[in-house]
Amino acid sequence: MSTLSVKDVQHAAACVASSCIRTPVIALRTDISERPLLLKAESLQPVGAFKLRGATNALARLSHAERVAGVVTFSSGNHGQAIAYAAGALGVHACVVMPLGSADVKIAATKRWGAEVVLVPAVCRAEACQEIADRTGARVVPPYDDAHVIAGQGTIGLEILDQVPDVDTVFVPVGGGGLISGIALAIKALGQDVRVIAVEPELAGDLAEGFAVKKRATWSSDQTARTIADGVRTPQVGDLNWDIICEHVDDALTVSDDQILAAVRLIAEGTHLIAEPSGAVATAGYLTHASTHDFGKSVAILSGGNVDLKAYARMLQ
Amino acid sequence: MSTLSVKDVQHAAACVASSCIRTPVIALRTDISERPLLLKAESLQPVGAFKLRGATNALARLSHAERVAGVVTFSSGNHGQAIAYAAGALGVHACVVMPLGSADVKIAATKRWGAEVVLVPAVCRAEACQEIADRTGARVVPPYDDAHVIAGQGTIGLEILDQVPDVDTVFVPVGGGGLISGIALAIKALGQDVRVIAVEPELAGDLAEGFAVKKRATWSSDQTARTIADGVRTPQVGDLNWDIICEHVDDALTVSDDQILAAVRLIAEGTHLIAEPSGAVATAGYLTHASTHDFGKSVAILSGGNVDLKAYARMLQ
Repeated sequence: MSTLSVKDVQHAAACVASSCIRTPVIALRTDISERPLLLKAESLQPVGAFKLRGATNALARLSHAERVAGVVTFSSGNHGQAIAYAAGALGVHACVVMPLGSADVKIAATKRWGAEVVLVPAVCRAEACQEIADRTGARVVPPYDDAHVIAGQGTIGLEILDQVPDVDTVFVPVGGGGLISGIALAIKALGQDVRVIAVEPELAGDLAEGFAVKKRATWSSDQTARTIADGVRTPQVGDLNWDIICEHVDDALTVSDDQILAAVRLIAEGTHLIAEPSGAVATAGYLTHASTHDFGKSVAILSGGNVDLKAYARMLQ
Repeated sequence: MSTLSVKDVQHAAACVASSCIRTPVIALRTDISERPLLLKAESLQPVGAFKLRGATNALARLSHAERVAGVVTFSSGNHGQAIAYAAGALGVHACVVMPLGSADVKIAATKRWGAEVVLVPAVCRAEACQEIADRTGARVVPPYDDAHVIAGQGTIGLEILDQVPDVDTVFVPVGGGGLISGIALAIKALGQDVRVIAVEPELAGDLAEGFAVKKRATWSSDQTARTIADGVRTPQVGDLNWDIICEHVDDALTVSDDQILAAVRLIAEGTHLIAEPSGAVATAGYLTHASTHDFGKSVAILSGGNVDLKAYARMLQ
C-alpha cells in the first residue's frame, strides 16, 4: 500500500505549471462510435512527452543543498531529455547516463537543454549512475519508481477530470508504470466511477500477464525489445508503481504492433498530431477493444511524439 | 474603410465557442534566437484548419428562415469542410460545390459531416453556386470576402492577445485574406503596438506585389498554381479583405517553396504537429526573415494540417 495520495498530485500541479503546458484534449473520430475518442496530447509538452511533468516535480522538490549538488539519471530517451530540460529551467546541474551507441539525435537532444551526457555500456548504466551519485553527491532521479515522479505524471489525471468532467474510461500506456500509477491515483480519488485501463504492446506484455494473476511478471529485455514501441520496453513495472496499479487500475489490455502502427496513422489523419509508436499504444487499446466493449466517453493518453522523422515517414506509407 | 469592428470579432468569439477549440500556443525552438517562435496551432481544430471559425460564425448569424433554407458555398478544400461541419452542428443543410476531378478524399471528408456535394467544371463553379442559391433560397457563404467570416477568423487574434499578452509580432499566411484581415482587425484595436505581417509563397505573391504600391494585384490561377501551398493559391485578396489589410497590416513578405517545406519539417521535429504546406507559410516567413530583422516575441499562425499522408511522408524524407 503506497503512502502517496492525491494531495501529492495536487501539490505537484502547482510545481509543474512553470515548465509544463496544460495539454489540450483533441477529438479523434473513429469508425467504432459516433462519440469521438478524446486524446490528451502530451506530445505537445516541451521535450515532446509527459515525462516532463514527473521530472519537473522531482526537481522542484529538491532542497537548496540538493539543487547545488545536482541530479543524475539514466535514460536513453524521453526521461533523460525531461530531466535535462527541467534542470536547465531551474539552473540545476544534470548528468544523464546513456547507453553507448545511443543515437546521435538523442544525445544531441539531451545536451541541447544543458545536461552533461555520460555514455557507458548498457549493462552497467545503473551502476554508473550510482557511482556518479556517490562521488558527486548528486541526487538520483529514477524514471518511474519514485513518489515525486509519479505525483508529477498524475497531474494529467487532474486535468482530464477538469477538461472532461463526464469521462467514463481513461486508457494509459504502460512501460515502467509511472504514468498510469499517477493518473490512477488522481482519478480514483476524485472520480471514483471512472475506469482506468492499462495498455501494453503484446510483445512487452509483462504487466498484463502479472495483472491477471496479481503477481508481478518480469520479461527479459530481449523479449520486450521486439516491439516497435521503444518507450514502453521496460521489463517490469516498478515497486511503487505495482502497488498503486494493483489498488487502482481496472484492467490491463494488450495490442499488436500492427494495431499500434494503425493508430499512429489514424492519429495523424484525424488530429494532425505526430505520435511516436509508444504514444499511440493507448489509442490502439481503445480501437482494438471498443468494438466489443462499451467504454463510454473515453480519453486516451497520447504520451509522446519523439520519433525520427524518416522512420515516421515510413510508418505513414 | 470597412465598417467591421473589433466588437464584431468579440461577438464572434461567443458564437464560435460551441464548435471551435481554443487552440494552444506551442513553442518552436529555432537556431535564430534563444526566444522560441510561438505557433498558434489551428491545425488542431475539428476539420483541421482555422476555417471552422469563420464558417461557424457565419452560420450562427443566420436567421431562423435562413437556417431552414440552408447554405451553399464553393470550395475544393478546408472552407467546404468547415461549412459542412458547422452546418451539421447546427442542423442546417449545406451544399458544397466542388470542381470536377477533386480528390476522392476531399469529397469524402466534406460528405462525412453531412453536406451535399455538387461537382461542376472548375470554371463555372461560382455560377453553379449562384444558381443553386437562386433556385433553393440557400444563402451563399463565401470563403473570405464576407464580414461574418472575417470576424470569425479574427477570434484567433483575441486569443493570441490573451495567451501571449507581451507579443510583439504576429505572422499570418495569406490566400484570399480572410484570416489576416480578421486577426489584424482584432489585434490593432486591442494591442496597437503589435505588428501584423502577411506571408505568402513567392509563387503566389499577389498581395506582396500590390501591398508595396498600395494597389491590389491579381495573379493568374496558372501562376499561383505553381506553389506547393495549395491553400493560398487565391489569385487576389477579397474586396473587404484588401481594405482591412491596407488599413491594419504592417508588411507583406514572401517565402520560397523550399523554405515552406523546411518549415513543415522543423514544425514536425520541434512540435510534433503536422502542418500542411499552407499551414507552414507563416513559420517560413519568420524563419526566413528573422535573422535580418528583430521581430521580438513572435507568434506564427499554423493555419491547417490537412495534407495527404503519403504526400506528407515524402515531404519529411
